[in-house]
Amino acid sequence: MTRYALGIEYDGGEFLGWQRLSKPGEPDPGSLQAALEHALSFVADAPIDTVCAGRTDAGVHAACQVVHFDSDAAREPRGWMLGVTSRLPPAMCVRWCLPVADDFHARFSARARRYRYRLLNRPVRPALERQYLSWERRPLDAAAMHRAAQALLGEQDFSAFRTVHCQAPHARRDMQAIAVRREGEQVVFELQANAFLHHMVRNIVGSLLEVGAGERPEAWIGEVLRGRDRTLAGPTAPPEGLTFLGPRYGPEWGLPAEVLL
Amino acid sequence: MTRYALGIEYDGGEFLGWQRLSKPGEPDPGSLQAALEHALSFVADAPIDTVCAGRTDAGVHAACQVVHFDSDAAREPRGWMLGVTSRLPPAMCVRWCLPVADDFHARFSARARRYRYRLLNRPVRPALERQYLSWERRPLDAAAMHRAAQALLGEQDFSAFRTVHCQAPHARRDMQAIAVRREGEQVVFELQANAFLHHMVRNIVGSLLEVGAGERPEAWIGEVLRGRDRTLAGPTAPPEGLTFLGPRYGPEWGLPAEVLL
Repeated sequence: MTRYALGIEYDGGEFLGWQRLSKPGEPDPGSLQAALEHALSFVADAPIDTVCAGRTDAGVHAACQVVHFDSDAAREPRGWMLGVTSRLPPAMCVRWCLPVADDFHARFSARARRYRYRLLNRPVRPALERQYLSWERRPLDAAAMHRAAQALLGEQDFSAFRTVHCQAPHARRDMQAIAVRREGEQVVFELQANAFLHHMVRNIVGSLLEVGAGERPEAWIGEVLRGRDRTLAGPTAPPEGLTFLGPRYGPEWGLPAEVLL
Repeated sequence: MTRYALGIEYDGGEFLGWQRLSKPGEPDPGSLQAALEHALSFVADAPIDTVCAGRTDAGVHAACQVVHFDSDAAREPRGWMLGVTSRLPPAMCVRWCLPVADDFHARFSARARRYRYRLLNRPVRPALERQYLSWERRPLDAAAMHRAAQALLGEQDFSAFRTVHCQAPHARRDMQAIAVRREGEQVVFELQANAFLHHMVRNIVGSLLEVGAGERPEAWIGEVLRGRDRTLAGPTAPPEGLTFLGPRYGPEWGLPAEVLL
């Protein structure tokens, strides 16, 4: 039995989210996990289960989701990559495949995760790249959002930014980096933490937008964090602007540079 | 009667090309022009015809197509922009609207046009942004393509790169700038000329790819140009990687900076 790691790219707008919505072998109404396991099982000619680094919600994209699985099928990594991709829907592909140590775990071995949120900031909704952008018509002050966001750095209780559906046993997370910048008509948010709560990125972005639009002072973000009350934060930003850039692992696993810490 | 200029953005993958395929007022199977004129006529409450800077083929995108039309409807430019956009399909929007001099002509006043072609260069097809990228699995030498492309600069006869369906009376065009660069896994081509022939950008890109993949020497591009024979050039690159960045006008028309020469 060999354990493999896969780097997976997807356009989440065409799926109902990562997590399988049916039992293995039964028809699935549109999860990424079911599409991947269906393709992997075809190539392996045996049922294959997968574990991912971080489940994404409906509509959220991934530049490099990482997954592990075990198989004794005699396939080269390149064969897995091309064979599985050829069985996936167009909105999903395998960027790379590598054999890894038996104790590698896509979720538990990850030491950090990175997300990017992109929105178009102009009076008119996007047409080009609208699948990957959310839209805010109020003029936004990106520098003010960047300054306000720095209150979220470090190990903190992020209860204020988790959805009521979040199943994590506690809300302490270590925010390692958070940056907001303007790129022409777009505003880009990048966040890195050891791990994220359910809806955490979209709730942080939704709250920062209140600051960016001038409806709240910069200090408000720190106040919301300290209040630990979801009802005090801003609305959840829509999913289409969010991309899971991928997890980050230590060098001991021999993974590609794009997922190294 | 007031003449207006519009800046139009669209995802060409959802349309059959710019040019109207039916008579005004009759159902149209999916041209951009028909969608725009339908929305304009609704807002003006009267039939409106448009003239564009450069007709794009099926599947080709635009960051800022420019269109002019005449109307005596009493609307502010912002009202046209928002009202027309609200009547357009999601893959199309109006970026700006301005009243212009009566002798402004979207096509004939344009002194240059700019195009960008983007492709993903890796073993596996794209999933993210696949609507806006073509794909080449052979490793490409972008620097070699850039050097080869410089043979196309200046006023030349581009017969070698026009489709047999091209209706232009002659094939002389002035190529003002052409650049090829690598951006990570992507290769980006940017071209500016006074005007382009039908399929000219896609035929140039298709030929440069032969050089980039090492199948032709750099000097071959100049030989193809001088041969003036379409059958000697490379294949036509697919449309999804191509974006019409927009036309360029002189400062006398008072248009937004993004369409100034």
